[in-house]
Amino acid sequence: MAQVNATVGDLEGNSDLIVTWTRRAADQGAQLVVFPEMMLTGYPVEDLALRTSFVEASIGALQAVAERLAAEGLGAIAVVTGFLDRKTGMRPRVGLPAGAPLDAAAVLYDGKIQVTSAKHHLPNYGVFDEYRYFVPGDVLPVFRMRAAGGELVDVAIAICEDLWQDGGPVAACSAARAGLLVVPNASPYERGKDDTRLELCQRRSAEAGCVLLYANLIGGQDELVFDGDSIIVDPAGDVLARGPQFEEALIVADLDLPEAVSSPCPSDTPVDARDGSMITIRRLELPDLPRPAAPDASQARSAWPRLPDLEEAYAALVLGVRDYVRKNGFASAILALSGGIDSALTATIAADAIGPDRVHVVLMPSRYSTEHSVTDAEDLAKRQGLHARTVPIRSMVDAFDAELDLSGLAAENLQARIRGMILMSLSNAEGHLALTTGNKSELATGYSTLYGDSAGGFGPIKDVFKTLVWDLARWRNGEAESRGEIAPIPENSITKPPSAELAPGQLDSDTLPEYAVLDTLLDDYVQRDMGAAELIAAGHDPALVDRVIQMVDRAEYKRRQYPPGPKISPKNFGRDRRLPITNRWREPANTALVVELGISPRPQS
Amino acid sequence: MAQVNATVGDLEGNSDLIVTWTRRAADQGAQLVVFPEMMLTGYPVEDLALRTSFVEASIGALQAVAERLAAEGLGAIAVVTGFLDRKTGMRPRVGLPAGAPLDAAAVLYDGKIQVTSAKHHLPNYGVFDEYRYFVPGDVLPVFRMRAAGGELVDVAIAICEDLWQDGGPVAACSAARAGLLVVPNASPYERGKDDTRLELCQRRSAEAGCVLLYANLIGGQDELVFDGDSIIVDPAGDVLARGPQFEEALIVADLDLPEAVSSPCPSDTPVDARDGSMITIRRLELPDLPRPAAPDASQARSAWPRLPDLEEAYAALVLGVRDYVRKNGFASAILALSGGIDSALTATIAADAIGPDRVHVVLMPSRYSTEHSVTDAEDLAKRQGLHARTVPIRSMVDAFDAELDLSGLAAENLQARIRGMILMSLSNAEGHLALTTGNKSELATGYSTLYGDSAGGFGPIKDVFKTLVWDLARWRNGEAESRGEIAPIPENSITKPPSAELAPGQLDSDTLPEYAVLDTLLDDYVQRDMGAAELIAAGHDPALVDRVIQMVDRAEYKRRQYPPGPKISPKNFGRDRRLPITNRWREPANTALVVELGISPRPQS
Repeated sequence: MAQVNATVGDLEGNSDLIVTWTRRAADQGAQLVVFPEMMLTGYPVEDLALRTSFVEASIGALQAVAERLAAEGLGAIAVVTGFLDRKTGMRPRVGLPAGAPLDAAAVLYDGKIQVTSAKHHLPNYGVFDEYRYFVPGDVLPVFRMRAAGGELVDVAIAICEDLWQDGGPVAACSAARAGLLVVPNASPYERGKDDTRLELCQRRSAEAGCVLLYANLIGGQDELVFDGDSIIVDPAGDVLARGPQFEEALIVADLDLPEAVSSPCPSDTPVDARDGSMITIRRLELPDLPRPAAPDASQARSAWPRLPDLEEAYAALVLGVRDYVRKNGFASAILALSGGIDSALTATIAADAIGPDRVHVVLMPSRYSTEHSVTDAEDLAKRQGLHARTVPIRSMVDAFDAELDLSGLAAENLQARIRGMILMSLSNAEGHLALTTGNKSELATGYSTLYGDSAGGFGPIKDVFKTLVWDLARWRNGEAESRGEIAPIPENSITKPPSAELAPGQLDSDTLPEYAVLDTLLDDYVQRDMGAAELIAAGHDPALVDRVIQMVDRAEYKRRQYPPGPKISPKNFGRDRRLPITNRWREPANTALVVELGISPRPQS
Repeated sequence: MAQVNATVGDLEGNSDLIVTWTRRAADQGAQLVVFPEMMLTGYPVEDLALRTSFVEASIGALQAVAERLAAEGLGAIAVVTGFLDRKTGMRPRVGLPAGAPLDAAAVLYDGKIQVTSAKHHLPNYGVFDEYRYFVPGDVLPVFRMRAAGGELVDVAIAICEDLWQDGGPVAACSAARAGLLVVPNASPYERGKDDTRLELCQRRSAEAGCVLLYANLIGGQDELVFDGDSIIVDPAGDVLARGPQFEEALIVADLDLPEAVSSPCPSDTPVDARDGSMITIRRLELPDLPRPAAPDASQARSAWPRLPDLEEAYAALVLGVRDYVRKNGFASAILALSGGIDSALTATIAADAIGPDRVHVVLMPSRYSTEHSVTDAEDLAKRQGLHARTVPIRSMVDAFDAELDLSGLAAENLQARIRGMILMSLSNAEGHLALTTGNKSELATGYSTLYGDSAGGFGPIKDVFKTLVWDLARWRNGEAESRGEIAPIPENSITKPPSAELAPGQLDSDTLPEYAVLDTLLDDYVQRDMGAAELIAAGHDPALVDRVIQMVDRAEYKRRQYPPGPKISPKNFGRDRRLPITNRWREPANTALVVELGISPRPQS
């Protein structure tokens, strides 16, 4: 399994990755190499799938890769890779081009594209919109290849969502009596998903009745972070191999597979896919080719440990930032440092992602800044070796005040916006990517200033609740200390009461409930989509439910203009949760109203 | 047909609309009133469809409306209305709650919900994501009711997209031999769609073999504007009634319908829907109820003229702004006035939408502002009676310069951002909705400043190319003059060469090609999704294709943070065109590369 980092739209770079990693696999004795879903185009390509020029370029690039592999002496390795294909000769669904796009996989061997197939189950929920882009596949390819020991093995192919939904290719694979089911994936990270994924693979392996190979992408793509975590399991549930998380890796396993037998389903037999549809089994035999001399398998590795929960979430954020910076061609990042925990964690993630010498921080004290806000920020920059500068905002605030005479919220926002402007000016002048430092609790409640602290191109912690911000900061410090290094984040930034410092003596707790209480409520409302009655039934304070729901609902317009940031939760703001801005629905918290509207206190789902 | 303006989430307000407009219809002698799709919840509700509390509230509200109608003496009128329903007892698709949501219609009569059905074809392209939210319906209700003359008539129901795709309810309606097909719709406006819609209704009426009644929503909802344009046609293609565009109206028609006969398809017969599925015909008979005395039909009106193209587009923008302001609870709007045509047109739209006394404009001259930029802006404010004030930005620019010493692009952006900040400060201090003034040509090419001229809550002309901005301004002036009024826009704002005035002597033409050339190219690239090879084959200059594609592709991150604005084109930036920010795909304009990547110069679609 080549668990690699593809880039959306980079056909040339992704083609190079296929050749490079196939060579590495060959050097370690592999006969079969499996790349992730949509490897050649990156994933998700969104509306690029609808552009005919891009689809044709993907198909052309696949052909070129097949030929390159053979030309470089790798034609005797069976390579399974994802790509963007199209289905001609059908009347496409409304909204799709005539060559209807397919989320496809191909077997490259002997310099040729031997067979292709397409994803059968199209996810169209959460962050996925595949019904917008693709038509479903209805073919299960089963290719027969000679293994190292000389025996013939039947290998079937399914793609990603084909595992997550019942029936389909897994059922057809069982009917076809294949000896191995390989599954290219582009499965984005969520906290705890590694456990879900392993159980899923174990279940589907048992259903398919053969070893299952799950090869996943790694890397960041806008809001998504692919975590790798590629897996090989057998029908008994035993893990035969498992790749690292958030890292490129070649996962090499020597599998003991059953010898191919003549099957009850000959080629081009439609079988009942047990999902209301039929799937056609397409069989082919890869020709025997002379293999190179026995290679050096001394580098082969098949197992990596799972990361503990906090380390895993932190690694996702780091990879998300690193890839957004790198894939968009930035050399450096810049952010505002307030001395508080959000900007401290964001800076630390950035430094871990791209190196401290590429991270620039700006201290922008105002008349309301406490002394510790400056000293804590300076302390952090020094601990990590970041490029720091100070731009006091008082003179600019005064210039605006002279013209506008603002007070209250407008005056508070003004300070945040002057800071946002300084950050963007330095970004424009010096070419850094500006990072925003807002956390998910703030985004949820609208406790932020549009074009102020929300100004920037990427929001590293936008999907991290405040309580998790603290946990990650403590974990990162502890991790440094356990290695005998200096803790990157000043203890005072972690322990002091949070404050926006936009007014004298201001504290977050003046406006928001305690974060431990708030985050639990937000988790139930935002991530679990509970209604007011259900939240109250779950034990949340009715008055607080009312107040927080109102804050969350009213802040939709702010979130709509927030930059992207890495998703680590089951439901992020952005691709996942999609609500109208113009929306008069107010969850009825009042029990009488709940009854009047006929809402049952427990939902059906 | 009650062509009314529902509001998303406002179950109470929308319920009131149903009762109010049914009473008006009764007063004019109607026996049957048809409301638009999702009338009770507004459309589109987006992820509210996934919230169990909201779905249950919709169902509860529908029951309450049926009872209210009867209680108010309107129980003998058959009311067809859209609402949000759910389908229980099925295993839902992955991502949907257990009560799978339905985009449904109901017949209310005699104080009861007589029958419900759901949309069969779910659109999942362009601005639509219905496969994310709904399961398809498979029932065609046919209700028999007594008409005014005493004869019985069979009425069938389909919903919106059921007309746009082949087969389905229209085919079933033909099999059921109904005498009338009523179709609630929430069909958003696009330029020229009225012609498409009429042809569609004529074709489907002929296929259904009966009169077709197409009742559409009006009103703005975030980026969508529903234009009404409700239609009644007969199978010969004759238009029996047609509602106004962008206005609420009761369209009253006295239809000569065939008497119901016993049909070849009895109730609960599944018939071939000619789209690969079966649809069950569900028949019911509405009980005879005593009708009130003959009403006064003197107000009845069945025909309105279509608007000419420019007037239609302008009306869409006005309604989009008016409803965003009103439905989000703003009392007023504010925008920056530069003396240029974009802000002049935006201000005029705003004044037409909410009245000049609720529009506030700010002139923010800098050292690079020409004299005419101030005088033209003042002239416009005076012509229209807007609240105008001047806030010179020089002292604020100086305050930033003293700290940052910016030059080039950063210095230009600084000025735009100071203006954005002043606008937002006044918005925060006084409660106005801030309007942005960017046009579609600027959005496409990235010729704007993030958090500068793009700062605001709503962008009235974000889907209007620059050439259309001029056309609309000229049309609006001409329209005023033809009524003997003062032209709202100073002629000089229309005729002078466009400039951002962020540097000495700067003109748009320094950076951008001539707008007539640019807009044609943008139309082909953005709206028609042509690749580079195709653009060149269509006659566009290859060097310009290369340059403009690069500008458009690189500006994706800016567009992602742009506020919503009314869609009037076939493909807007926002809901319609969805591309990744991280995207290394560059259209190969070079012919050699085109050949190398296997791209044919003509696409298949």
